[in-house]
Amino acid sequence: MGAVRRRLAEHAWEGVEPIAYHDPALGGVEKHELVGPPDGAQGYRVRYFHVPAGGRTARERHPHDHTVVIDRGRARVTLGDAVVDVGPGDVVYVAGDELHCFEAVGGEALGFICVSPPARPRPASR
Amino acid sequence: MGAVRRRLAEHAWEGVEPIAYHDPALGGVEKHELVGPPDGAQGYRVRYFHVPAGGRTARERHPHDHTVVIDRGRARVTLGDAVVDVGPGDVVYVAGDELHCFEAVGGEALGFICVSPPARPRPASR
Repeated sequence: MGAVRRRLAEHAWEGVEPIAYHDPALGGVEKHELVGPPDGAQGYRVRYFHVPAGGRTARERHPHDHTVVIDRGRARVTLGDAVVDVGPGDVVYVAGDELHCFEAVGGEALGFICVSPPARPRPASR
Repeated sequence: MGAVRRRLAEHAWEGVEPIAYHDPALGGVEKHELVGPPDGAQGYRVRYFHVPAGGRTARERHPHDHTVVIDRGRARVTLGDAVVDVGPGDVVYVAGDELHCFEAVGGEALGFICVSPPARPRPASR
């Protein structure tokens, strides 16, 4: 059965609780899980990241890829060895194992849609 | 390797050729294949649909699901037995085999991001 998630404000959707992201020192990034396996989507999940002005996502690499579509604000994007600036409507594909980081620049908050494969269980710690 | 697709205009991205969609009688709908298996994305593809004012997508159902995020304009959405009106930032999950149709209402063009599993080859015709 389908579902509708209405946007209530710039980073708020009906029925979606924001999740604080990683280290608070990164500036208060929020994740919003918009659609994923709990809805029946088997192959992907769709999230929204809100990055306050001056904040950034973790600088990381991992096996799964991402597709990002900028919703608002400006991002300075680390993508492997490159650094590129992007804005609303621009699309960034981050390949698996590629270093990446999205930083909110220009004195405004950054918001982007992020598509990725469904989360896999983390390996048990030893 | 990652990629950046810059948005050049409301329904134009650098390096992406729009594809005319289905029956022209539906009002000149365009698809833009933003990211998918040719980029290395294995589990999903991300497309943008531009629906001119008064146009609509096909009224259809099929086994694969969709996640739609409205970018601009207003949509009257058929979702199974329901009809709902949505606008920018609203998210619609269309389950597999669910009847769906997106119609541009309110006298303006509709644009939306559509996430779905990668296309499977069509069965050979007999």
